[in-house]
This record gives sequence, C-alpha cells and structure tokens, in this order.
Amino acid sequence: MNPTELIIKKRDGKKLSKEEIHFFLTEYLRDNISEYQMSAMLMAILLKGMDFDETYWLTQEYISSGEVIKFANKNGRFIDKHSTGGVGDKVSIVLAPIAAECGLFVPMISGKGLGHTGGTLDKLESIPGFQTQIPLKRFKELVLQNRFAIISQSKEIVPADRRIYALRDVTGTVESIPLMTASIMSKKIASGIDGLVIDLKVGEGAFAKDLDTAKNLAESFSKIGAKFGKKVIILFTNMDSPLGSCVGNSVEIIECIDFLKGNYKEDLKEVTFALLTEMLLIGKIVKTKNQAEEMIMQTIKSGKALQRFAKFIELQGGNPGIVNDYSILGKAKYVLPIIAEKEGYVKDINSREIGWALIDVGAGRRKISDKIDYTAGLKLYKKIGDFVQKNEVLGELFYNNEEGERVADRIRNSYIISLEPVQKESRVLVWAP
Amino acid sequence: MNPTELIIKKRDGKKLSKEEIHFFLTEYLRDNISEYQMSAMLMAILLKGMDFDETYWLTQEYISSGEVIKFANKNGRFIDKHSTGGVGDKVSIVLAPIAAECGLFVPMISGKGLGHTGGTLDKLESIPGFQTQIPLKRFKELVLQNRFAIISQSKEIVPADRRIYALRDVTGTVESIPLMTASIMSKKIASGIDGLVIDLKVGEGAFAKDLDTAKNLAESFSKIGAKFGKKVIILFTNMDSPLGSCVGNSVEIIECIDFLKGNYKEDLKEVTFALLTEMLLIGKIVKTKNQAEEMIMQTIKSGKALQRFAKFIELQGGNPGIVNDYSILGKAKYVLPIIAEKEGYVKDINSREIGWALIDVGAGRRKISDKIDYTAGLKLYKKIGDFVQKNEVLGELFYNNEEGERVADRIRNSYIISLEPVQKESRVLVWAP
Repeated sequence: MNPTELIIKKRDGKKLSKEEIHFFLTEYLRDNISEYQMSAMLMAILLKGMDFDETYWLTQEYISSGEVIKFANKNGRFIDKHSTGGVGDKVSIVLAPIAAECGLFVPMISGKGLGHTGGTLDKLESIPGFQTQIPLKRFKELVLQNRFAIISQSKEIVPADRRIYALRDVTGTVESIPLMTASIMSKKIASGIDGLVIDLKVGEGAFAKDLDTAKNLAESFSKIGAKFGKKVIILFTNMDSPLGSCVGNSVEIIECIDFLKGNYKEDLKEVTFALLTEMLLIGKIVKTKNQAEEMIMQTIKSGKALQRFAKFIELQGGNPGIVNDYSILGKAKYVLPIIAEKEGYVKDINSREIGWALIDVGAGRRKISDKIDYTAGLKLYKKIGDFVQKNEVLGELFYNNEEGERVADRIRNSYIISLEPVQKESRVLVWAP
Repeated sequence: MNPTELIIKKRDGKKLSKEEIHFFLTEYLRDNISEYQMSAMLMAILLKGMDFDETYWLTQEYISSGEVIKFANKNGRFIDKHSTGGVGDKVSIVLAPIAAECGLFVPMISGKGLGHTGGTLDKLESIPGFQTQIPLKRFKELVLQNRFAIISQSKEIVPADRRIYALRDVTGTVESIPLMTASIMSKKIASGIDGLVIDLKVGEGAFAKDLDTAKNLAESFSKIGAKFGKKVIILFTNMDSPLGSCVGNSVEIIECIDFLKGNYKEDLKEVTFALLTEMLLIGKIVKTKNQAEEMIMQTIKSGKALQRFAKFIELQGGNPGIVNDYSILGKAKYVLPIIAEKEGYVKDINSREIGWALIDVGAGRRKISDKIDYTAGLKLYKKIGDFVQKNEVLGELFYNNEEGERVADRIRNSYIISLEPVQKESRVLVWAP
C-alpha cells in the first residue's frame, strides 16, 4: 500500500478499508509515514468525513496502539465521565468522589489544560504533593482501593492519540467528529470502563456551536461506544459563562471542597448532579432519578464524599489537611476587585474571554510547555441573572505578576450588564438519547 | 499571525488575505512553519479552493521567493511552451529549435520525469555530454545567442515551488487548480517570458479528465498570466495513446531529429504545429495560421531548424554529431518485437500502462533518485486506426535488464485490437479562448 494513494482516496471522499486504516496508523507509529503525510490525511478526514465503519476501525487502531486496562468482576460498575472542556469546569473533581461513595468505580484518566479552558490535572496539582503521573499498575490498585483515582494521560494508554492529538492541535484538524470520537472513545475504552457519561458543551467557543452539530457528535460517541459494548450517555450543557464561582486552579479546589461540604453554586450543582444521576443509572446503582438525587445528597450531608476525597488526595501524595485548612494551598500576593461600572442585571459573562485573560496572570497555558501559577485565579460573586449596583464588586482577581490591572479590565469587559431583568437559564440543555 | 489559525481559516472555506499568504509562505521558507502545517494547508486549499485574488497573491509569493530573469529589448518575442506531461511527449525538443529559427526566443526551464510520463531533460541527457544544470547567467547568454536553451529547474528560480512541489507529490495535493497555477505560472513568469502556450492534456490519466475541468484550469492559467501582463494561450490535447512513434529517451531523441529532417508521425506533427502556430501568433512573428504553417515548414525543409538544434546540443556540451550519426547515442543490448495476437484495427493504446511498464526496463523513474537507462525504450509501428495482421509486429522493445519479456507482454496488452475499422482522431481537441 502507498500512503499517498490512501491520502488521495480519502481526499476524493472514498471509504478507507479496515486494512488501509491499519496500514496508515501502524506505519505512522513506526515512523514510516511522515508527520506531513499524516497531517494531510487528517485534513482530508476532517473535510471529507468518515463513516461509522471507518470511525470504528480507527478507534480500534487507536486502542490497540497501547495497553488496555482490565478490571475483574466489574458488575458493570466502572463508569467514567468525560467533558469536552469549559471555563471553571471542575465537575470531575466533585463528581468522582460522590460517584465512588455511591458505589461506582471511576477510573479517570485526564488531560492538562491548553488554551482558554482549564485542566482537571492542573487544578489537582495545585495541591502540595499531589501526583498525577502514576504507572497504570498503581492506578488500577488505587481505583480498586478507593473506588476512584484521577491520573494524567499515560504513555502506555493509546500512544497513537498522544502523537496524533499533538499534530491535530497545530494543523487545524481538531474539530472533526470521527477524529474526536476515536480520540476520546479509545482512551475511555482502554481505561477499562463499562459505561461513560459525556458532558458535551454546546455554544459559541465549543466545537458544537449548535444542537445539530452536538447531536451528530453525540450519535457518533454513543454508536461507537455501543459497538464496543459500552453504554454511553451524552448530556448537552451550556458553557457560555464560567461554571460555578471560581476560575483558576487552587481557587477551584477550594470551591470543590466547599461543594463537598454542601455549599455550592446552583449551576455547578445542576451539571454535576445531572451527570452523576446518569452514571448511577447506567451503573445500575439506582433505578430512578429521584433515588439518584437522594443518594447523592446523602453522600454530601454525611460528609462521606468529602472523606473519600481526602483519602484520594492522600493516596496520590497530596496533603489531605487542605479539606480543613485552605491556607495549605497558598495565596496569591495581590487581589484586585472587579468593579461594576453601571447598575443592572448580569446578562452575559463571556467565559472564553475570561479564560484567555486569566492566561495572562498564569492561571492557564498558551503553549504546552508553559508553567502554571496555581494561586492565580478569579472569584465571581455575580452570576447571570444577578442584579448589581454601580461600583459593586463583580468578582476578585488573584495574581502574582504585573498583568493584574490589564486582566481585571478585560474581565470587567466580559460582563454584559443590562437594565432589563435577565432570567437564569438551565445549564443542562438536552438529555441526549 | 498564527499558522494554525490560518489553516483553520482556509479549512473553513474563507478567503486568505495577501498578508496572510505572504506570512504563511515566507515563514514556511524560513522553517518557522513546519512541513506538516504546510501539508495541512495544501490539503485545505485543494479541497476548499482559492479565488482569483488568492491564486494571484500565491503566485506572487512563489515568484518573489527567488530570482526573476529580465531580458532587455524583448519586443514581446520571448515565448515559452509548457506541457502538463504525457507519454512520448517530445514536443518541446522539436518545437523550440523551430520557434527559434522563426525568430522567437524560447527560454525553457524544464523538469525531470516522474511516474509514467517522461521528462524532456531526461531525453536530452541521453545525448553524451549534454548539460542541463546551467547557472541562470549562462542560461540567459545561451538564450540570447541561439534564441533558445533548455535547462533544468534551477534553485535560484522559485525555490518555494521546489519545496512545496516535493511536499505536494507525497501528500496527495498535486491536483489543485490554484496550486497548479501558482506552480507553473510562477516559474514561467520568473523565466522572463512575454507569452506562453500551454499544451493541456485532457482525458483519463491526466489531471483534467474532462473538458470542464480543463476549461477551469485553462481559465486560471490565462487570467493569472494576464494579471502579470503575459499572454497565455491554452490548447487542449488528447494523450490517451503515446504521442509519435517512440517512447523512452534516446529513441525519442532520434525521433526528434527525424522530425526536424521532415520525417514525422502525423499526431506529433499536429500537436507541434498547433502549438508553434500559437507561439508565432502571440509573438507577432506572423499574422495568420497559414503564414505560421508555411514558415514552420520552411525552417524544416531548409534544414535550418535542424542546424539550430545541432548548435543547441553543442552549446550545452553535447555531441552535435548525433544529428547525422545515431550510433553515438548507444544501443540497448536486447530487442524484443511486440507481436499482435489477432488481426484487426488498433482501437486504443493505453499510454499510462505503457509508461508504467517502461519504468521496469529503466526508461523512467519511480522515485526521484532512480537512475534512467537511456537506451531502454519502445518503438511503435502501429498507431490508432492502423490495421494489423495476426503475428504482425506492433512495435519493438529495447532493453538491458531481465524484465524484457514481462514488459513486452504488458505493452502488448495495452493494445486494444478491434475488428471494426477505427477512425484516427485529432489530437488537438479544442483551442481555448
């Protein structure tokens, strides 16, 4: 087989065979097919698409490029959650201990943040001593011991995706349904799950700008999952404004601990509870949504979810004392209030703008090699629908460098204040089939 | 500017600005944009297209990546010919000395053959001593001295195309109208021409499989030419069967010398004369097609075109004695006749098949690093429309390796013999606007 001929075949909109996809992937991983041939193929796939068979074969190739975790005697209770990423999205960190406390096993392999959305791993690494680079063998032990663990993408799991994702990131080939499906589903399937709940962000700034695109992507995820015998449920959520009350790293960890103590912003609760409910249903822990909600509430009220979280921190090398003493996380040197310039109702908070602005105080990365400033971040006191007085404090910016004034301005400008009352909207837009 | 954002812009079908195209090309040539980013951009251009402005800006960037030849006092008589390539296509070698003898200047920068079509330079290099790697300064002198010269693509002229063409070749991004236009027109414009006649092949095996595609490509060539103040005329020709009576290298040189002596196959004459007529018209050497034909005939009958050809061989280091003594070119060790297995009329000769078969006896290249066996080749005694007896000789294969029998079989199988009489068709399909 000739790599150029296969690129041309896809470029001309033809279907690649299982053998052709196998050849292209394996020869690429052996360095017999160059990066520039792969990037041309990726662009051809993005623009010409892949049908179900091709997407399935591609996912298979991704999976078999590395190790596959096997848990024994699972009884269908190994359920993970995946999010397509958002500003202030700390759902994994609160959801996993609750799910575990309810009886599920959550083997979570997560990524670092890049661009305007933060990464679960970066948030966890703001906890002194916390380790995310953990060998798969130890990861398996941790999941069995505490029912959940969160580690960073390992070189052993789906190495094909590691290489191809890095290439997609710089060649404009991220936003492709078959490529997104293979990338996400392969990692989840290789991590040994029985089922998966996906939080699919819809709206400006997300891949799925409208519900039609979101439905196509959801269909691809769930069909490929089904082909591998995994139940996949997709929730469409709105990520136009930041989720919860904090954006950053250590500030989000504090918000998570507060959440597990029963103090939460309504929007973060809505999304977290909705995802948890689906997890408990497909994990057959409960039979109805009401049972799920009750059980979730109970794990919080009893303090057991928080205990399990502290245990998790300890098992991965962090200081579990943080659940009672936030000062262990350290503090930013400077604080600047974000002051409202006029009175009215908060109509919109541009999460994309806030995400990019916070990169300038070091809360996120522009390049994968950038260092994170863990204590830099933002607290939002006003959310969509809230009324604010002129000169009232909308939020507070925490930072350690010289960019504070400029970033605070940019954050203030991402608020839209309207004289008309604004209704709070549900974050969860649609429950996918 | 961010290269990935520009790839995404083109991928999404948007128009790139002059500044964006300038940035992408210059940063690529400075190695600040990688090969894999360029190949993703090329695939996006192939699939999403470029409008006239973008194609013009791209051509400009190609040109300004290297030197531009300037001839003084041209009077519009510097006219070149370009062919999109075909099997047995030796037109340049007979056309250039005739055009020069008629009073035109022909500064021809040509390429090596790759794949099933042969290269003008390989044919010329089968002449002992003949040089094609000539510095631009010397090339200019040769053109002024003998009114034509044929050299190989120089590193000084359009280096952008050298690099990008090599990348396109292995990434399935050759067949794009804007990319073909920029590649061909930039080299011709940088070589100092006033006008250009293009022999655009149409049919199976060519980029332009139908007349509609051919017309789109022709329109792009001529509009971009006009924007640079160059008159461009396009002829559509049929290349389904090999052109003339020989395919190979030294055998084609012999056919060229015979042509200049007045002995020619009708199809090669038709294409060559048609192209020459257009060259003489746009170079304002003649006013009518009849005048052109008369003048062309005269240069052949008088032997002056042949003299000018001999002078050209000598000036570029070759032995001009070949025009009278073909043995100087050497001979293949073995000859095998291609025998007709049944009687009938030659309905088709698959030039693509013949081109690929001859690579196995070394007459062409599979990879750019392959060595050519100059004396290997094919003589065709029967052309489309000719009647053949069973066991009559269709042609002769000349070769030096062990592949002869197999290649001869493959060549015989590329003939389609029919019991119905077959009409000879015109090679020149349409004269473009």
